[in-house]
Amino acid sequence: MPSFHPMLPPLQVQQWFNTTPLTLADLHGRVILLHVFQMLCPACVSHGIPQAKQVRRLFPADQVAVIGLHSVFEHHAAMQPDALSAFLHEYRIDWPVAVDQPNPHGPIPLSMQALHLQGTPSTLLIDRQGRLRLHHFGHLDDLQLGAQLGYLLQEANVQQTADATDAHGHTQGCTPTGCKAP
Amino acid sequence: MPSFHPMLPPLQVQQWFNTTPLTLADLHGRVILLHVFQMLCPACVSHGIPQAKQVRRLFPADQVAVIGLHSVFEHHAAMQPDALSAFLHEYRIDWPVAVDQPNPHGPIPLSMQALHLQGTPSTLLIDRQGRLRLHHFGHLDDLQLGAQLGYLLQEANVQQTADATDAHGHTQGCTPTGCKAP
Amino acid sequence: MPSFHPMLPPLQVQQWFNTTPLTLADLHGRVILLHVFQMLCPACVSHGIPQAKQVRRLFPADQVAVIGLHSVFEHHAAMQPDALSAFLHEYRIDWPVAVDQPNPHGPIPLSMQALHLQGTPSTLLIDRQGRLRLHHFGHLDDLQLGAQLGYLLQEANVQQTADATDAHGHTQGCTPTGCKAP
Amino acid sequence: MPSFHPMLPPLQVQQWFNTTPLTLADLHGRVILLHVFQMLCPACVSHGIPQAKQVRRLFPADQVAVIGLHSVFEHHAAMQPDALSAFLHEYRIDWPVAVDQPNPHGPIPLSMQALHLQGTPSTLLIDRQGRLRLHHFGHLDDLQLGAQLGYLLQEANVQQTADATDAHGHTQGCTPTGCKAP
Repeated sequence: MPSFHPMLPPLQVQQWFNTTPLTLADLHGRVILLHVFQMLCPACVSHGIPQAKQVRRLFPADQVAVIGLHSVFEHHAAMQPDALSAFLHEYRIDWPVAVDQPNPHGPIPLSMQALHLQGTPSTLLIDRQGRLRLHHFGHLDDLQLGAQLGYLLQEANVQQTADATDAHGHTQGCTPTGCKAP
Repeated sequence: MPSFHPMLPPLQVQQWFNTTPLTLADLHGRVILLHVFQMLCPACVSHGIPQAKQVRRLFPADQVAVIGLHSVFEHHAAMQPDALSAFLHEYRIDWPVAVDQPNPHGPIPLSMQALHLQGTPSTLLIDRQGRLRLHHFGHLDDLQLGAQLGYLLQEANVQQTADATDAHGHTQGCTPTGCKAP
Repeated sequence: MPSFHPMLPPLQVQQWFNTTPLTLADLHGRVILLHVFQMLCPACVSHGIPQAKQVRRLFPADQVAVIGLHSVFEHHAAMQPDALSAFLHEYRIDWPVAVDQPNPHGPIPLSMQALHLQGTPSTLLIDRQGRLRLHHFGHLDDLQLGAQLGYLLQEANVQQTADATDAHGHTQGCTPTGCKAP
Repeated sequence: MPSFHPMLPPLQVQQWFNTTPLTLADLHGRVILLHVFQMLCPACVSHGIPQAKQVRRLFPADQVAVIGLHSVFEHHAAMQPDALSAFLHEYRIDWPVAVDQPNPHGPIPLSMQALHLQGTPSTLLIDRQGRLRLHHFGHLDDLQLGAQLGYLLQEANVQQTADATDAHGHTQGCTPTGCKAP
């Protein structure tokens, strides 16, 4: 019996950078690396973003789409879209980046909430059919991310039996591993 | 004939973090590492700040004082003191940091102008007598910074004959080496 | 029309370390990472061996077998099996390592010759059916190696259409990239 | 009252590489970095030797002399001078390297014994007057080594009051930090 992989819900986006507005459906047929970050999260800057940049460099764009999701859950005033724009410029991030839709009722933005993200950096992989296949919080080894990408690129139109979900629980704030959401 | 080493002019500071307001004169008798940075400058984040943190860890605080100077010359809106406060928190920067006094007439703040800084990161060393002895823009090897610190810690009350000024000229914006001021 | 992937020829081995003698056939059903090295090759020590160690750590042993092949083509006197034994001990290499069979007629050992290796480090991937699927000389990015491993772990019993063979040609001796065979 | 700094005893050397035979007295007037290593010691290869190479690159040769001492206390058969010669060639070590004189009565070679070395890598600094000023076993931070070099380069002909001797005690064999002598 095939296991169940949920379709990724539509992202709730306040604003896009480096692209006209897009939906994940526009990327159907490609494997999607969705890397979730905050511009002032140290582990995002030292690890998550360089890794996304390397995936973009090493994999053909018509096979693997790299998308950033800026999900701010702390220090909101310091990470508004104008500040993000400067950050994207300085860090030479030229792939599509979505600003997660702020939540009028709390600090956790709407996509972050809908995706049950634990914090930043988070790495999500979506398969060619739009299903969420990897959901990882914190540092992810290049060999492991590469293996998941190779796996998803190779698989035909079959149901997979296992996720590679992994989660580290940090108690609060930012650590060398990442910034944990409350 | 002794060479001339200028006294460092007083810093022009809008606001201090992690300390009550201080002057370089308060640090007289110590060697001072003044590291100049912008919070959205990639080379500052990957190199200059970790190096300052390591100096603070390895050298006795009563011998070497580490001081940050946040000299914003671009993307001003994204790097206001409130944003810097969040940055200092996330990056665990617990030493005194001065916000360079904005310039009402242009993008280059007043201390940056007075010190003839070329951009960020910049590393300045001030000797026990308050004289500027090293002024370096861009990446500075740990062995070289260590040697200059050891040199200044050891020297008696003598005039030195040589600076170790080094400068790289980048044409604009931020590169892996640093962010060059216009 | 399916492409042709040659079966890996049997290794010609003078001596095994960390295992009783084995053949690649013994590993049938697993993906094999065969990393070829020389103990005095700097790029093998700084890159190839740590990468093999990380693959061994991150992938289940019943899915991916890691095998070393010590193929000495220069400085033969300094890299005899006794010296290799000391090296394996000091570098904590605990997976099976084969000593390539010396060639009575020249410097290139017999497996190296049969596999048409260009030098060290070389990375070979053999699929679950024993076919050679990747043959890379020099530095191989973790993301790329991971992707190839994921691809081979996922594929069913089908003929693949493309190798990922890549080769750098260095003129002689050891460079930061690796040691090229004559 | 000035502290006592012993003169470094003459090295007992079986053979020199990259130079005609020399004595430390030949280097009088220069600060000497004596880095002690074994060619199969992982921490020497990953840290001690690259650090020595960087000192050689960054400091003027008429101010700082870099000298290697190959002190083999284990796996003697694998690290004979012929093997060392291949190692020096592959690792592009072009500064003078002395082979420590083997001990007919035990595993510890004679200079290692006379210098009371704890293992490899060890870093020794000798001042312009030939006195031993730093003796460190294991990893030494670049900032700290740089500071000691700057200190010794600057000091005039005065007695210093403090060494920076540091020692880590590992129980046996090689660890990521170094190889400890019995």
